[in-house]
Amino acid sequence: MTKALSFSAFVMNTASHILHGLWRDEEGHQIDFNDVNLWVDLAKKLDKGGFDVLFFADVVGLYADHKGGWEYHAENGLQIPSNDPMVLISALAVNTKNLGFAITAAPLQEPPFNFARRISTLDHITKGRIAWNIVTSGQDNAYRNFGYEKMVAHDDRYAWADEYVDVLYKLWEGSWDEGALLKDRESGVYADPSKVHKIHHESKRYKVEGPHLVSPSPQRTPVLFQAGSSTAGRDFASRNAEAVFIIAPDPESARKVIHDTRQLAVEKGRNPDDIKFFQGLSFVVGETEEEAQRKDAELDSKIDLDMMVAHISNSFGKDLGYLPLDTPLEEVQTESVRSIAEWVRQSTPGRTPTVADLARFQSKITRISGTPEKIADELTKWSEAGVDGINVINATIPGTYEEFIELVLPELRKRGLARELSDTPGTLRDRLFGESRLNDRHAATKYRGAFSSVKA
Amino acid sequence: MTKALSFSAFVMNTASHILHGLWRDEEGHQIDFNDVNLWVDLAKKLDKGGFDVLFFADVVGLYADHKGGWEYHAENGLQIPSNDPMVLISALAVNTKNLGFAITAAPLQEPPFNFARRISTLDHITKGRIAWNIVTSGQDNAYRNFGYEKMVAHDDRYAWADEYVDVLYKLWEGSWDEGALLKDRESGVYADPSKVHKIHHESKRYKVEGPHLVSPSPQRTPVLFQAGSSTAGRDFASRNAEAVFIIAPDPESARKVIHDTRQLAVEKGRNPDDIKFFQGLSFVVGETEEEAQRKDAELDSKIDLDMMVAHISNSFGKDLGYLPLDTPLEEVQTESVRSIAEWVRQSTPGRTPTVADLARFQSKITRISGTPEKIADELTKWSEAGVDGINVINATIPGTYEEFIELVLPELRKRGLARELSDTPGTLRDRLFGESRLNDRHAATKYRGAFSSVKA
Repeated sequence: MTKALSFSAFVMNTASHILHGLWRDEEGHQIDFNDVNLWVDLAKKLDKGGFDVLFFADVVGLYADHKGGWEYHAENGLQIPSNDPMVLISALAVNTKNLGFAITAAPLQEPPFNFARRISTLDHITKGRIAWNIVTSGQDNAYRNFGYEKMVAHDDRYAWADEYVDVLYKLWEGSWDEGALLKDRESGVYADPSKVHKIHHESKRYKVEGPHLVSPSPQRTPVLFQAGSSTAGRDFASRNAEAVFIIAPDPESARKVIHDTRQLAVEKGRNPDDIKFFQGLSFVVGETEEEAQRKDAELDSKIDLDMMVAHISNSFGKDLGYLPLDTPLEEVQTESVRSIAEWVRQSTPGRTPTVADLARFQSKITRISGTPEKIADELTKWSEAGVDGINVINATIPGTYEEFIELVLPELRKRGLARELSDTPGTLRDRLFGESRLNDRHAATKYRGAFSSVKA
Repeated sequence: MTKALSFSAFVMNTASHILHGLWRDEEGHQIDFNDVNLWVDLAKKLDKGGFDVLFFADVVGLYADHKGGWEYHAENGLQIPSNDPMVLISALAVNTKNLGFAITAAPLQEPPFNFARRISTLDHITKGRIAWNIVTSGQDNAYRNFGYEKMVAHDDRYAWADEYVDVLYKLWEGSWDEGALLKDRESGVYADPSKVHKIHHESKRYKVEGPHLVSPSPQRTPVLFQAGSSTAGRDFASRNAEAVFIIAPDPESARKVIHDTRQLAVEKGRNPDDIKFFQGLSFVVGETEEEAQRKDAELDSKIDLDMMVAHISNSFGKDLGYLPLDTPLEEVQTESVRSIAEWVRQSTPGRTPTVADLARFQSKITRISGTPEKIADELTKWSEAGVDGINVINATIPGTYEEFIELVLPELRKRGLARELSDTPGTLRDRLFGESRLNDRHAATKYRGAFSSVKA
């Protein structure tokens, strides 16, 4: 049986997010990302068009040096300037009905008490449509913007995140019991004080007394997204995530990641489908196969390969900017490059892959180009591999999403791969899981009722 | 010559802010403060009605114990629950044209790099209509929500705030030169990297590398509000504030505070009118004097004196909750109570003032009740004392502001005490000072161009 997928628009509050160079294209409006109307218009279109989530990626520092410095990033608009996503959401919420909003934030950025309050406030404002994409910042500069010398070691970052979410769970799930809020004009009682609790949290990094200042919001805990694929990341996801964002190179690889992570979740007492998997894909749509291929080549010609290199250098642990684009890839001897080299080689049959090919590979890695029918065929494979949703990477805003809504979604609906449009408001968790609150297999819910006896 | 005043609506994202107990009244809608529509509707009314600012107070912790605990606060909705104001603003911004938005935040809450980015993002979203009310949290519980044992000593809080704003000023004024942002599709250059700078800040509490991630917003630095009246507070204001919120008991007292603070500012190289003073006042309006007096008495009857006591206990440094309301005030021997006792005594001619009288005095301290004509007469006195704006305290939302807009502002316009309605959008600073950027006498502006030579 075909399963309907969820759809998320993967964006960032900056000029150039993933497919770099496109901000220079007349069709793209992201050059004006400072203007709130760009985002309001996009959110309205997604909401009306049947998308489930508008997902904002974010980083709070520069990517690693390119050609020995960071001037390149500023010059090319490579995720700098970039604006905060969190304060943008309420403008989008009041202009939409059903669309969920995922914001990205790291423990580095804000003390948990403040973050918990802001998310709860947003959950009230959106009427339960907020999600949080939990990240641990991966840029040295980000750490240096927050008082550290350099990036905290990888596994320590996850230990930190574990500690951070623990505080949040106590505030979101444990500080206010169900039924605490009375708002009773007659008796004059706003809240039942026997149902509001301090949390008295103490751990290595955090000491938080409470109580949470915000009364229970529709979802209490926001829908929890996560994207780590490392061992520590997957362990964290299996314990905490309700939705995992993956970029698998093909459906079979996705199947394996999904299976492994679900297995870990089951070991922790959760059900396999307590976690939804969103695969990142980009699309080029044509009414005919020829048109699609022409547009695909056109897109390739607009992508700035040098910017692609600058972006991936950060995760490849080496400043590739010094290398000419035609440098044979085999000369780049970092572990990360070696780990992907075979994939790149397969994309250049009959010749030795270069740094340019690596960049091109990155720009095409999960791209599906074709007619709506072909795209539906491909998405069937992803769905059958166990993927629950698609995180749609854009070339241009709003163009990519307009095309997807107008041309692709109708075909997907025909095949049961996308849900029928609905005008019924509800929370994001309800949309994804059929209930507004975390199920009681989730780690956060152990704090429900846990603070009842605390009086001080 | 009469000077037109500015008008600010003084609110808080909670059920009960200043005039406590009114949430129980059918006319008040603040009981539903979780609903974003309450605030959207209010913002639209203020914007259309000619208000200049919607000012959100905030605290991030419980007030001091009342009757030995904090249950009272939860039970009566005394600023708990309360929601974050910052994430609410963009919803209001996209529904208004001219209205400015002041949000309250303390250095305790968020690292400066993150805060600077969020404010800059909001300044872009609002098209230059954001203000920041700089506070140093005054509740022990707030500190315990952020890892401290108890409140930091008063003067240390201002030293901390000084350090905090110093980082912000570098990010807002110094990290991006004018003309750095090019957004040039033709040449492919998004920003001129020679005009974007790291700030390499290092001080006692903060180490921040930069660069600021947000390109210069319409105002760069938000309009800076402050409210401290202590020596350290006034010193801080004279250096940093562009608008000071005061609650003087009468125009003559206001005149003195204004004079003294302006004097301090002049000593620091600023002009006297580089700081605007907003006096907090509440209003009861009647078409006749009799109607006004009837409504005034009605308001008194709805105010919960015990809640007033619970609120002020925090600043009086003693849990007054244990004392019956009819306790003679002279039995309360704290310094803060003694400092205000004479004022209270004057409000109860012929009898000994009690704790209830103290609370009543607080609830009436800056209330003007009368016809629009009488209110205009009184505001003339405040204007002549040097006050630049009125921070209008509400009894009910939106009732208080609807009345003020419909009944009072027209009379004030007749007399030149309020500006004519204008539909011309502009920044908040432009509205208050006639220019969008900080003038070069402000401490922040020494960082303009200060980082030009830094390359690393």
